[in-house]
Amino acid sequence: YEYLEKELEVYRELPAQTLDGHRLILRGNVELAREVPAVLAHGGAGVGLFRSEFLFLNPGQAPGEDEQFEIYRELAQKMIPEPVTIRTLDVGGDKFVPEINLSEEDNPAMGLRGVRFSLKEHNLLMTQLRAILRASSFGEVRVMFPMISGVDEIRACKDLLRQACAQLDERNQSYDADIKIGIMIETPSAALIADLLAPEVDFFSVGTNDLIQYCLAVDRGNEHVAYLYEPLHPAILRALKMIGDAGRKADIEVGMCGEMAGEPVYALILLGLGFNELSMNAACIPRMKRIIRQVRRQDGEELLAQLLDLPRARDVSRFVEEEMARRFPGLFGPPEI
Amino acid sequence: YEYLEKELEVYRELPAQTLDGHRLILRGNVELAREVPAVLAHGGAGVGLFRSEFLFLNPGQAPGEDEQFEIYRELAQKMIPEPVTIRTLDVGGDKFVPEINLSEEDNPAMGLRGVRFSLKEHNLLMTQLRAILRASSFGEVRVMFPMISGVDEIRACKDLLRQACAQLDERNQSYDADIKIGIMIETPSAALIADLLAPEVDFFSVGTNDLIQYCLAVDRGNEHVAYLYEPLHPAILRALKMIGDAGRKADIEVGMCGEMAGEPVYALILLGLGFNELSMNAACIPRMKRIIRQVRRQDGEELLAQLLDLPRARDVSRFVEEEMARRFPGLFGPPEI
Ligand SMILES: [Mg+2]
Ligand SMILES: [Mg+2]
Repeated sequence: YEYLEKELEVYRELPAQTLDGHRLILRGNVELAREVPAVLAHGGAGVGLFRSEFLFLNPGQAPGEDEQFEIYRELAQKMIPEPVTIRTLDVGGDKFVPEINLSEEDNPAMGLRGVRFSLKEHNLLMTQLRAILRASSFGEVRVMFPMISGVDEIRACKDLLRQACAQLDERNQSYDADIKIGIMIETPSAALIADLLAPEVDFFSVGTNDLIQYCLAVDRGNEHVAYLYEPLHPAILRALKMIGDAGRKADIEVGMCGEMAGEPVYALILLGLGFNELSMNAACIPRMKRIIRQVRRQDGEELLAQLLDLPRARDVSRFVEEEMARRFPGLFGPPEI
Repeated sequence: YEYLEKELEVYRELPAQTLDGHRLILRGNVELAREVPAVLAHGGAGVGLFRSEFLFLNPGQAPGEDEQFEIYRELAQKMIPEPVTIRTLDVGGDKFVPEINLSEEDNPAMGLRGVRFSLKEHNLLMTQLRAILRASSFGEVRVMFPMISGVDEIRACKDLLRQACAQLDERNQSYDADIKIGIMIETPSAALIADLLAPEVDFFSVGTNDLIQYCLAVDRGNEHVAYLYEPLHPAILRALKMIGDAGRKADIEVGMCGEMAGEPVYALILLGLGFNELSMNAACIPRMKRIIRQVRRQDGEELLAQLLDLPRARDVSRFVEEEMARRFPGLFGPPEI
C-alpha cells in the first residue's frame, strides 16, 4: 500500500513517455462526476470515457438538457486543461436504463443498442448533443459515439451534431465549434473498415470487450462459452492492428477504453500496435505509466511482429507473459511454462 | 416457366466455366435426402452443404449411428461421382432440436452453438463422425465443422475424427482414410485468421448469414436493426477477400454456402474474390451457371478492385447492380439511379 502511494507520487507528474520518446496519453474511465478527483490524483491526462448512461440510472429522473449541461460543464472545468470525452448514451445489450423501454430482443447484444438506439430516438440524442456542446465552451469537451458499424452512421451523427450547433446558434448559446468527434471501434466491421472511418473523425477509441465478443461470436457472460473469450486471440491482434494502422495513417488519435487498456501485461503490445491513448480505471494509470516509461515503442513493434503469426491464443498469451515477466520480474512473476 | 425448363436442359451438362477458362463448382444445399434428385436435375456437382441437424427434428427419434450411416450412405451413393459435404450437427443460435435441451441464453447467437456444442457433447459428435466415416467408403463424403472461431477448435475436431477412425479400425469397418475435412467460415475471427486455418483443412465454406451478422453485430431477425444487415457492406467484402486470398494461397477449395452464394447478382464479385465453389438451393444453380459462362474471372477481379474502397454499403450495391444490369439487361433490369 505504501508502495502504491509512492508510485502515485512519483508518477503523477511524469509523462507516459517511452525510452525512445513516444508519448502516450493515459486517461481515466469515469461513470460519475465524483470520480474526477481520482483521475487527477492518479495523474490521468483527462477523461477518455465518460459513460453518460449512468446519468439515466435513477428512475423518474432522466436528466434534461440543463441538468446534463451542468454535469458535463463541471466535469470539463474540473479537468482543465485536459479533455473530457463524453460518450453519448450507450443503452441496449446488457445496459438497461429505467427511463428507456427497450423491447425484448432475442439477441440484445446484436440489437438496438448504442448509436442505433440514439439514431432511432433523435430527440434524446439531440438533447444530449446540445448539453455536450454547451459544456464545450467551459473546457475541452470531446464527443464520442458508441457501436458504429459503418460510415453512414457516423455521418448521420455528425449531421445531428451540426443541427444541434444550429439550434444553439439560434439561441445565441456558445459552444466549441471545433469540438473533437470520435467513435468507439467495437464492431468487427468498424475494425475492418477503420481506414474508411478514420477520415470521418478526430479519434478512435477501441471498446475491447465488445470487439472481442463480436469477433469471436462469444457472449462472455455465458458460462458455456466464456472460455472462448480471449483478448490475445490472433484474430483480435489482427483487428487491433488494422485499427492502429488506419488511425496512424490518417494521423488521428488511436485510443482504447476497454478492459484491455488498463491491463499492464498488454502495455507493450498496445504500444507496438500504435495506440497513443489508453483510458482505464484511474487506479491502473500509475502502473501503466511506470511500464511505458521503461520500454521503447520499438520493443513493442518487435514483440508484435513475433506474435502475429502464432496460431493460437494460448501461444500468444504465453509469449507475451514470458516477455513481460522477463522485462518486469517483480510485476509479472515467473512465466507459466 | 417454359424458359426455366429450357435453361435447366441447356445448362445441366455444361460446366460452370468462365470465358477465360476458370472452372467453378456449383453444388446444392440439402436438408433432406429426398432433395438429392433436384440437385442432380439442376446440374449440381454434388452437395456442398448437408444440414445434418434436420435428422434430429423428430421428437423422440434422434437417429443413432446406424440410422445416420444409412442416410449418409444413400446420399453419397446417389451423388456418385460427386461429393456430399456433411456438416456436423449445427444446433444453438436459432436452431433448436427437440432431443437436445439447450439452456436458456441471453444471446444464443453468441452462445453454445455449432461446434462448441459438439465439442462439449463429445458422444453425439463421435456417433455422427463414425456414421459419416462409414458412409465415406460408399461414395465421396466430406465432413464440415460449423462455427469454428480458432485453430484450437478445428484441431480438437480433427483429433476426435482420428479417434472415430480408430474405433472403426477396431471394429474392422471401412472408411475413406483421406476423407476431406472442411470448416464453415462464419465468425469474424475465422475470416481474420483464414490464413492460419487454411493449412488445417481441405476446404472452406463461408456461411454468409452468420458472418454478416457477427461482423456487423446485427441480428437480422430483429426488426429494429435488420436494416443494417447488408451483404455488400465494405467490411463484408473485405472479410470475404481475406478468406478468398488465404484459401487461394493455401491452394484449398474456397466455397460459400450462405444465401449470398445463390444470388446471381453477386456472381461476378464472388468470382473476383476467388471463390471456386458455391453451394445453393438447387433451383438457383442453372441461372448462376449461365452467368458464370458469360463472364471472365478477370471481369470479377476488375469489378472488385473498384468496390474495395467505396465507403458505404449503398455505394457498393449500386455499383454492382449497375454493372450487372449493364452486362445482363434481361436478368437484372434497369439500374436504380
Ligand atoms: Mg460497447
Ligand atoms: Mg451458421
